[in-house]
Amino acid sequence: MKTPLIDNLQYAKFSPRIFEQMRNGGVDAVHVTIAYHENFREMVLNLEQWNRWFEMHPDLIFKGTTAACVRDAQKTGRTAIFFGFQNPSPIEDDIGLVEICHQLGIRFMQLTYNNQSLLATGCYEDYDAGLTRMGRQVVTEMNRVGIVVDMSHSGERSTKDAIAHSTRPIAITHANPAWWHNALRNKSDAVLTALTESGGMLGFSVYPHHLAAGPACTLASFCQMIEKASRRYGARNLGIGTDLCQDQPDSIVEWMRVGRWSKVIDYGEGTASDSGFPEMPDWFSDNRDFGNIRLGLEGTSLSADDIDGIMGGNWLRFYESSFGPQK
Amino acid sequence: MKTPLIDNLQYAKFSPRIFEQMRNGGVDAVHVTIAYHENFREMVLNLEQWNRWFEMHPDLIFKGTTAACVRDAQKTGRTAIFFGFQNPSPIEDDIGLVEICHQLGIRFMQLTYNNQSLLATGCYEDYDAGLTRMGRQVVTEMNRVGIVVDMSHSGERSTKDAIAHSTRPIAITHANPAWWHNALRNKSDAVLTALTESGGMLGFSVYPHHLAAGPACTLASFCQMIEKASRRYGARNLGIGTDLCQDQPDSIVEWMRVGRWSKVIDYGEGTASDSGFPEMPDWFSDNRDFGNIRLGLEGTSLSADDIDGIMGGNWLRFYESSFGPQK
Repeated sequence: MKTPLIDNLQYAKFSPRIFEQMRNGGVDAVHVTIAYHENFREMVLNLEQWNRWFEMHPDLIFKGTTAACVRDAQKTGRTAIFFGFQNPSPIEDDIGLVEICHQLGIRFMQLTYNNQSLLATGCYEDYDAGLTRMGRQVVTEMNRVGIVVDMSHSGERSTKDAIAHSTRPIAITHANPAWWHNALRNKSDAVLTALTESGGMLGFSVYPHHLAAGPACTLASFCQMIEKASRRYGARNLGIGTDLCQDQPDSIVEWMRVGRWSKVIDYGEGTASDSGFPEMPDWFSDNRDFGNIRLGLEGTSLSADDIDGIMGGNWLRFYESSFGPQK
Repeated sequence: MKTPLIDNLQYAKFSPRIFEQMRNGGVDAVHVTIAYHENFREMVLNLEQWNRWFEMHPDLIFKGTTAACVRDAQKTGRTAIFFGFQNPSPIEDDIGLVEICHQLGIRFMQLTYNNQSLLATGCYEDYDAGLTRMGRQVVTEMNRVGIVVDMSHSGERSTKDAIAHSTRPIAITHANPAWWHNALRNKSDAVLTALTESGGMLGFSVYPHHLAAGPACTLASFCQMIEKASRRYGARNLGIGTDLCQDQPDSIVEWMRVGRWSKVIDYGEGTASDSGFPEMPDWFSDNRDFGNIRLGLEGTSLSADDIDGIMGGNWLRFYESSFGPQK
């Protein structure tokens, strides 16, 4: 069977139009964010919205829970939608909610979203104290039930702690190497080495704040970075996690950044003069553009197998070993 | 394969001791109540407690979600635990929670618990106005996803409405015929006829307030009632739903009766002078006593096949057609 095309992070303003673009782009599976600052009950409202979409558009999308769902998607010409949180707020202070969330289909959870959480430290805090007492317990529980630890928005020390404490490989679903573009959200060589040496996965982001030269980043530059990362970390631990925020109004990026934690606006990766969602690079604006990335990678020295792996095969293999109970 | 033994309603104060009694009694599946007055978040706390029991006692019990789990239980010498609500309070005012609850493993939901709910009228209200606007929508949604409508604590008209409106057979999981013992919680011949003619199931209760002569009810009287009901309604639509409340302190029966809806004590089926849980009849006090009921039924004119059906085969067949999405 053909290697699947998987995008391991999107937070678009989803709609039937976008689901059709997924099909037109031949995207077999997408990991979508369903919570930033929501508590458990609010997160469930987001699940309900997805259930309604699954009910109304069964010809386009369905809920993904296991790696086999990606193969089903390929066979039936649909897109499997996998759920994740960018913050542990939906589990509140209650470790029992980890298994409940797995039962509801959650397969990825970030331990932090920029700020300190009950579990770990976010990448925007001044001081990173690493995994907390609860954080260690929750990582163990995530390992047990099969929710992937995602450290995309976490600090350096917390990320290293999570890699060390987790008994299963973890993920950084959407970020790029800091050696290519030095940004708070991009990851140090030390983190990426520890991540990939432990079997963890890095998903390359197309979000402009994570790109060298921002929206002006060329496809060639992006693909040369992937080529270099493949040489350095091995292509098998790399994939795509675009962080596509298509069609979202700017009020959403404010929600992502500020939630309910501050009365003062925080611009995150933006600035006061450029506070909204950034412009996308001209070679990637929606789910129909993955062919551009593949073409770009074919212009590098990467092998066809490596490219297949980066475009989805590696995430599929990671899904196969990550989403079930620990053996 | 041997016909399974199924008890389709218990609300014991569950513990490893009771799980062992289930094994000693050869009980293959039990439908347990996990909510009376809980809202969604509170009900999830009860699910968490069950998850912990499943994690700690995998040799005794596991979570049941499909009829096949009953067969798995028989093969592995364990008890499959199926979840249900005695009140729709966990879905709050939110129809989207019906599917969420199914995803969490809920397989039965009463539309009312004695009082008026958002969906229908309970059997203790003075006037029964039947299914509400939301009630009709929720029954349709329960039909779609595969949660069984349970009218054990509902009024006459609401029950008839539910039977008529539901496109799948419904259940009265724990009650007896009013022609044997006239009590608010027992069911009229008209209701039982409509229920069973539409393929619905009645589970016979051993809760003393539902028994002729209460705790003094003899096994012979109970089994003669079942024999008579089999002649009248057909044995294939009958099963057991003991309503076993073993080991519960009396504070729990007060919670069941009053929840948070009243500042004044309500004695339900009890009285001021006898307000606690009633004494159980001497032939049934825990999960090891199902053999007594079988022996009692063997003392009637019922065939071995009919007895097998009543002791679990009929519930299994009902599970097979009830727990999945509507076809």
